[in-house]
Amino acid sequence: MGILVVGSVAFDSVETPFGRVENVLGGSATYFSTSASYFTDVSLVAVVGDDFPKEHADFLESRNIDLRGLSRNPGRTFRWRGQYGYDLNEAHTLETHLNVFESFRPVIPPEYAGAEYLFLANIDPDLQMEVMRQVKSPLVIASDTMNFWISSKLESLKKVVGMVDILIINDAEARQLSGDPNLVKSARKILDMGVATLIVKRGEYGVLMFTESSIFAAPAYPLEKVFDPTGAGDTFAGGFMGYLANTGNLSESGIRQAIIFGSVMASFAVEEFSLNRLKNLSYREIEERYRSFKAMTHFEDLPETGGGY
Amino acid sequence: MGILVVGSVAFDSVETPFGRVENVLGGSATYFSTSASYFTDVSLVAVVGDDFPKEHADFLESRNIDLRGLSRNPGRTFRWRGQYGYDLNEAHTLETHLNVFESFRPVIPPEYAGAEYLFLANIDPDLQMEVMRQVKSPLVIASDTMNFWISSKLESLKKVVGMVDILIINDAEARQLSGDPNLVKSARKILDMGVATLIVKRGEYGVLMFTESSIFAAPAYPLEKVFDPTGAGDTFAGGFMGYLANTGNLSESGIRQAIIFGSVMASFAVEEFSLNRLKNLSYREIEERYRSFKAMTHFEDLPETGGGY
Repeated sequence: MGILVVGSVAFDSVETPFGRVENVLGGSATYFSTSASYFTDVSLVAVVGDDFPKEHADFLESRNIDLRGLSRNPGRTFRWRGQYGYDLNEAHTLETHLNVFESFRPVIPPEYAGAEYLFLANIDPDLQMEVMRQVKSPLVIASDTMNFWISSKLESLKKVVGMVDILIINDAEARQLSGDPNLVKSARKILDMGVATLIVKRGEYGVLMFTESSIFAAPAYPLEKVFDPTGAGDTFAGGFMGYLANTGNLSESGIRQAIIFGSVMASFAVEEFSLNRLKNLSYREIEERYRSFKAMTHFEDLPETGGGY
Repeated sequence: MGILVVGSVAFDSVETPFGRVENVLGGSATYFSTSASYFTDVSLVAVVGDDFPKEHADFLESRNIDLRGLSRNPGRTFRWRGQYGYDLNEAHTLETHLNVFESFRPVIPPEYAGAEYLFLANIDPDLQMEVMRQVKSPLVIASDTMNFWISSKLESLKKVVGMVDILIINDAEARQLSGDPNLVKSARKILDMGVATLIVKRGEYGVLMFTESSIFAAPAYPLEKVFDPTGAGDTFAGGFMGYLANTGNLSESGIRQAIIFGSVMASFAVEEFSLNRLKNLSYREIEERYRSFKAMTHFEDLPETGGGY
């Protein structure tokens, strides 16, 4: 069985130095599930309003994403408006209209309750907890969060962190959650909250993974064309979880490969607005970019016997 | 024959969130040569005032650094005062007193004129040019620069870039020099100025190397204790050039290894103020950290035959 993701489906209006779009398909669960769909079966739990057009649902279904958990409630779909300057690492939120998402209470359809891989996208940690109660015994639970929950629901969030296997957040969130400006110390403090694997996203600087016994550093793919970073983090998580679910290889080696697949998917996502670039990828392109990551990071190890001058 | 470096020797006063020091040994040539001295012979061309204490010269000589090119002029040594906040990537300069460095005209002692490896630290590009005229036919010339020269002496600087083999600058400088906010496009424009290898330093995010045909990404070593980033870039360059000069391996594979050695040396430099951590390293520690870089970046390649879902 594949992955269950709980998160948001939204309409985004985005302005970057390279263009603007209005009310395009977005949301954490959307990016995640589209990305993961290249690797495994995905079931989605989210809510949309009665303004959600059939073409978007059709697109998600064309990616084999199971929408039985997508509620359609009276009202408008979640809307977000944001802007990026040349520093594409930082989004400036101009408007957030939660709309139907404000009263979102995720109900996991009974068919999904046996999901083996669960991704809790950035929602209220109390809701993340409710989801975990409804899913019997997943092999792997990963979660995301944001600054808003760290400041407003820290205790609930810490409980969630203690229950998931993998926490996927950005560097500012890691510093805020730990209260430590140093990322390595932050990581240690967060691991001490009870999560086995911490993945810290650093935008154009790539990803760091921390466990009790190791650190893995993966660069981002250096792109000539970064159009729109919206959704890059959820796309990363989708590729990452998708590859894990596809292979079932939960060793550190497998997790490292999954991080590279996540980075590959994120590198495609930012090349165009919305999900446009993710709509028509081939698995061959994905593998090619994986190999580019390998070529880009490879260097020879030292011989066994020491040198010295 | 080893490396010749032309740059500054200075007294630094530095404040970071973790402490402060007054008038400690610093300067680009100092950091560079100390770092390189772990790999090869280094000769230094720089200027100090009559206030430069014997203990500092003794230290440099204890590292086998040839000081015949170190002029002692009447007046005070170059002094720099700077401050770092928690974002250790950005130095805030509080005071710069060039002192004897203001009238520095590098004269290469005849014994050095056959140097095979030449590093032009961040000085006036016209002086970098003068140095190149005095050194007969080095195998490898690398150079650094800074925002001040990019804005005030762009034409001279472009000539220098066209004459050196390797340019080692930070990401802001690369964007400024190229006039392009995108780093990959910046790199292409800078390579078009006639330099074969561009190394872009990104502080705690590591290093990117660009050539016509490849990109190499190396992370920085994630440290729990970053005390003082002063000199990290020159320490990187010293380890990088030192390893190249030691092995003579100028293939891309050798250059990639040299980048890791540079990153290793920089990671040590920032652990303490001034050159303190670089004073008493063992080659074993250097190799150990190199192997840590290898472990930290390794992931399995894909099998030859394609997968796909």
